[in-house]
Amino acid sequence: MNVRVGVIGVGMIGQDHIRRITQVLTGGSVTAVNDVDAARAGQVAAVLPGASVHATAQDLIADGNVDAVLVASWGPAHEEQVLAAIGAGKPVFCEKPLAPSSAACQRIMDAEMATGRRMVQVGFMRRYDAGYRAMKAALDGASLEGDGLGAPLLMHCAHRNPSVPDYGFTTDMIISDSAVHEIDVVRWLFGEEIAAASVLRPRRSGRAAADMQDPLVLLLEMASGVLVDDELFLNAQYGYDVRGEIVGETGTVALADVSEVTVRTANRHGGRVPVDWRDRFIRAYDAELQDWLNAVAAGTSTGPGSWDGYAAAAVTGSCLEALRSGQRTPVTLAERPEFYAKAL
Amino acid sequence: MNVRVGVIGVGMIGQDHIRRITQVLTGGSVTAVNDVDAARAGQVAAVLPGASVHATAQDLIADGNVDAVLVASWGPAHEEQVLAAIGAGKPVFCEKPLAPSSAACQRIMDAEMATGRRMVQVGFMRRYDAGYRAMKAALDGASLEGDGLGAPLLMHCAHRNPSVPDYGFTTDMIISDSAVHEIDVVRWLFGEEIAAASVLRPRRSGRAAADMQDPLVLLLEMASGVLVDDELFLNAQYGYDVRGEIVGETGTVALADVSEVTVRTANRHGGRVPVDWRDRFIRAYDAELQDWLNAVAAGTSTGPGSWDGYAAAAVTGSCLEALRSGQRTPVTLAERPEFYAKAL
Amino acid sequence: MNVRVGVIGVGMIGQDHIRRITQVLTGGSVTAVNDVDAARAGQVAAVLPGASVHATAQDLIADGNVDAVLVASWGPAHEEQVLAAIGAGKPVFCEKPLAPSSAACQRIMDAEMATGRRMVQVGFMRRYDAGYRAMKAALDGASLEGDGLGAPLLMHCAHRNPSVPDYGFTTDMIISDSAVHEIDVVRWLFGEEIAAASVLRPRRSGRAAADMQDPLVLLLEMASGVLVDDELFLNAQYGYDVRGEIVGETGTVALADVSEVTVRTANRHGGRVPVDWRDRFIRAYDAELQDWLNAVAAGTSTGPGSWDGYAAAAVTGSCLEALRSGQRTPVTLAERPEFYAKAL
Amino acid sequence: MNVRVGVIGVGMIGQDHIRRITQVLTGGSVTAVNDVDAARAGQVAAVLPGASVHATAQDLIADGNVDAVLVASWGPAHEEQVLAAIGAGKPVFCEKPLAPSSAACQRIMDAEMATGRRMVQVGFMRRYDAGYRAMKAALDGASLEGDGLGAPLLMHCAHRNPSVPDYGFTTDMIISDSAVHEIDVVRWLFGEEIAAASVLRPRRSGRAAADMQDPLVLLLEMASGVLVDDELFLNAQYGYDVRGEIVGETGTVALADVSEVTVRTANRHGGRVPVDWRDRFIRAYDAELQDWLNAVAAGTSTGPGSWDGYAAAAVTGSCLEALRSGQRTPVTLAERPEFYAKAL
Repeated sequence: MNVRVGVIGVGMIGQDHIRRITQVLTGGSVTAVNDVDAARAGQVAAVLPGASVHATAQDLIADGNVDAVLVASWGPAHEEQVLAAIGAGKPVFCEKPLAPSSAACQRIMDAEMATGRRMVQVGFMRRYDAGYRAMKAALDGASLEGDGLGAPLLMHCAHRNPSVPDYGFTTDMIISDSAVHEIDVVRWLFGEEIAAASVLRPRRSGRAAADMQDPLVLLLEMASGVLVDDELFLNAQYGYDVRGEIVGETGTVALADVSEVTVRTANRHGGRVPVDWRDRFIRAYDAELQDWLNAVAAGTSTGPGSWDGYAAAAVTGSCLEALRSGQRTPVTLAERPEFYAKAL
Repeated sequence: MNVRVGVIGVGMIGQDHIRRITQVLTGGSVTAVNDVDAARAGQVAAVLPGASVHATAQDLIADGNVDAVLVASWGPAHEEQVLAAIGAGKPVFCEKPLAPSSAACQRIMDAEMATGRRMVQVGFMRRYDAGYRAMKAALDGASLEGDGLGAPLLMHCAHRNPSVPDYGFTTDMIISDSAVHEIDVVRWLFGEEIAAASVLRPRRSGRAAADMQDPLVLLLEMASGVLVDDELFLNAQYGYDVRGEIVGETGTVALADVSEVTVRTANRHGGRVPVDWRDRFIRAYDAELQDWLNAVAAGTSTGPGSWDGYAAAAVTGSCLEALRSGQRTPVTLAERPEFYAKAL
Repeated sequence: MNVRVGVIGVGMIGQDHIRRITQVLTGGSVTAVNDVDAARAGQVAAVLPGASVHATAQDLIADGNVDAVLVASWGPAHEEQVLAAIGAGKPVFCEKPLAPSSAACQRIMDAEMATGRRMVQVGFMRRYDAGYRAMKAALDGASLEGDGLGAPLLMHCAHRNPSVPDYGFTTDMIISDSAVHEIDVVRWLFGEEIAAASVLRPRRSGRAAADMQDPLVLLLEMASGVLVDDELFLNAQYGYDVRGEIVGETGTVALADVSEVTVRTANRHGGRVPVDWRDRFIRAYDAELQDWLNAVAAGTSTGPGSWDGYAAAAVTGSCLEALRSGQRTPVTLAERPEFYAKAL
Repeated sequence: MNVRVGVIGVGMIGQDHIRRITQVLTGGSVTAVNDVDAARAGQVAAVLPGASVHATAQDLIADGNVDAVLVASWGPAHEEQVLAAIGAGKPVFCEKPLAPSSAACQRIMDAEMATGRRMVQVGFMRRYDAGYRAMKAALDGASLEGDGLGAPLLMHCAHRNPSVPDYGFTTDMIISDSAVHEIDVVRWLFGEEIAAASVLRPRRSGRAAADMQDPLVLLLEMASGVLVDDELFLNAQYGYDVRGEIVGETGTVALADVSEVTVRTANRHGGRVPVDWRDRFIRAYDAELQDWLNAVAAGTSTGPGSWDGYAAAAVTGSCLEALRSGQRTPVTLAERPEFYAKAL
């Protein structure tokens, strides 16, 4: 079966997903596009044989040639678009955040539950990364290396970006745009919620914009007591480097360096550090969207869903409050509905 | 464009390519199958919607619903099938060997040249492996790490398989089935032909079948003098491990270990060694066949071709002679036709 | 010159230093021993040709055949013994802690300053470890790898021990006996004092004694704002593993794994994790004591001194208070006397 | 006991051993020196309190204040000096080669056997390197990692030097000065003799002197059939890099990289490659000479001895013949005397 996808928002990430569906993955095609910038939508559609351009997201969702909707617009627009797709009975893949507030995410969950079936996948692509998958397999004892990690106690994370623009990227965005990836992935790795968060302010890098506190360190306390520390360093200069080590009662598992080759020159041996997020996670994006296309074709839903989007929004909110107050801040979550029992 | 592929030979590798075309790659479909085992062909076709089963390879090649042919039958049948595809004007992807003898490969080249266009891709998938690609990029100075390797002087290779069946796998097959991968990949890495070969017989492993000389060491002398040593160890037990290091005048580049995670347990830290060739090279097979589908759709040919199949057959022949004689054995090659000037 | 050393306290660490002086290092001999357990002192002296046994530490210090004193008794006895050695004008090497309280350390500093010369070295042996030395060299830009780390912003540490006895080892001791090593080494690495400390309580390991909170995470804030997180896990089971990574504005430097060989067996590649602290740091202990012998012979003092012992005691006190209160706790230090200007 | 050492030959290596005995090791002192350059001998002795300068090696050997002799003169003088020390009943440490020819080494063995006790240690310091020791322990199954290597079948070695002088260093010296280290160490690792040798001439590096064939590849066949390939590359530019991997029936063990820290800068992660042989092997030299001093003090002999010097000379001779002839060359050894039964 071929899944006909309508794409709302054709900026960088939207265009990248279109390229993925049309040139890399199997089982999907792009039949419609919409963007707040109509000219851009037209340019993108021009090289997609048979694709329509719609003036509004609502029109696109209503299009009979659209089986499923991919939302890659800006965050504040997500709630209305996702609700519309749910209302139209069309599966929707929504880039993070599902919605900027946990209240908005709650409204999406309500609408989805009213339909009686899971229709929403959120773009938390790290769950599809081979490294995190191997880490989870080791933790769950399902792999050769998994022998003897014991119960998890701690996790050390680092999320380093070479740089961000001097203007437009705020300290808050370090949490809402970057840390949100660890926020989701630790929930998935440990199969439990985050109970509280703190934010520490280390010495500032002189490479960061004057009004930006970079790096930050997040402390996330899982419901079981597992403590996660997460270094977020958006101007680390040397490369894009995402690291993680889970410490269990009897062993540890860490993301490995991902260089294909080792070079020896000039009294140094070593490998490559990725240049950017694309270089590091492109396969995870591919796997994520292929999984969604397969699930849509099969009439199921397997990836991170609305509950995950809701929980991420709640934790992000607590982190932002902790950033402002300097205090440890509990995370308040509604009780998880039975409907989302398998969401984690 | 969708390339309709007819598959000749639906054993393990043929079925794997069918899975790849139908479930992983984009731009292709399988519309016809043939196998010497008609029952097997029928079973495979049964789960391929709309695919025909043909009684003979010739019938399949003649099928109007077949745009391109994938040959995954046994080696002795390749020449006839590839020639038939060329004769029908249909692009052909042929698993290694192109043909068992260099004379047979020569006949294929003659037929292909008579058509005036490149129609054959040979299944040397290592050229599509991310590790070898990064190695070549470093050698060619095209990557960050490439600075300063200088001219290549030596290459050390190892090709270790956990085990092979006690019956049916001969010492000759270590060269024709295993070493042939290094034979092709060093030609590609260095952009030149192999001039002579020697075969050494180290101490035998007690894990090898009684009549099998395992491991072997091949010495391949490139035209420029670059010396390649290649350990072939088919019963290495501990895993599937393909390694390589090129030594240049001012630095070296080596394939890195490919584990996604590092585990620390029981006084040991380290990563995973692949279980088998599939585990190690599955992405290379995917990339290889996607490249072929793209090339067929574009009416071009970009991968390893008939000349590469011919050269590999000639070097394999010299290695087998060296194995028998214990002597250094020159490789005799025809002059490379202008038609294949970009073949390497 | 041969330095004649009197050793006070001949338990495990005292005996190890005696072995070191007599069998490994150059320029020293052990001429006198004392221990609260007179029988043990006698047994140790019996195999040291010409060594005297003294009934009291004071007698040993007064011995004309003793040029310098090594204090390896238990912590509460250190102050009196170090003061006595200073009073006798004899250089003294004192195992950590210099004294259990910062007030006691202050009294030692006062006595030392009164003599007008540096006479005390404290047993912070990590400063002599090749790994930490290379790390400091990289940070200071003095090594090949040092290019471009920039100003330090963060440090991640882990201190993992396979296990500690179920009885006798308390949660407080995780700080006073284990974390004290990181407390000293970060002061040395960054060349500045620790301004505040917090202690976090992650999920407890089921392998720890019932009344022990293991692991702990310390947060140490350097005067400049550099933030150090330090995982202390005394029952980590898998080995003795001390790790550290300094994150600078433009790069990072980390302690490397220290295995001499890499083994490939059973689908795994990797190296050894040290069995215990001796396995990991034996060379650092050798270097530390050789440096002290050399300094004594030269009439100088080069290693960590009384101020370092004082600062470590003050930070340890703040950490213990933070452990009890759960609050971030500032470190209160006297102004550093000019006399100790080069102490760090 | 203090071993009073007389040093014959106080060039670079002789002076380094003097520094070692006087400033690093325990249990020895240098009481006499001799050199063909009398002025140099005088300068060296001037900073050794109480050391005599002797006009001839014979005088030094006869000196009543000399308990043991260290020969660090040039190779052609070794035979006469070692024989004189044996004649005087004084233990002797002789830098490699024991003597330039196997016939000369045979004369030394004859003289030593006539005394009835082992008196000679040859300076094959790699046996004392922590890496090779861990490798041998793994091979012998005596270490944690040793599980399951099985019988050894192959060994891959590389011996890379950044550069050698354009004048004075010949192709023959690659074998007699560099390869001799691998020649000894593989005999020790495998506990057996080398039966035959071949020498291959890869493409020459443009960085080598015009008349020098660099790199070379040696093929050494152990008596059991274990095959050793040894890359010798004396102008490798990028650093001093000694590597080795033993391939057993069920696993492999390799020398690990020896960097103390890992650095991440400029899109690269990795460690340091040693600058020169001193940087790489200084600890092995220390351990070697300490072992000799201990053995002399104990009246025993534990290190590599005359038989090892003899075997190395014989294999070196065969390699040089193989270099000239281009042919595989058997190694001819006398039967090993019972006297040297524990020599390997």
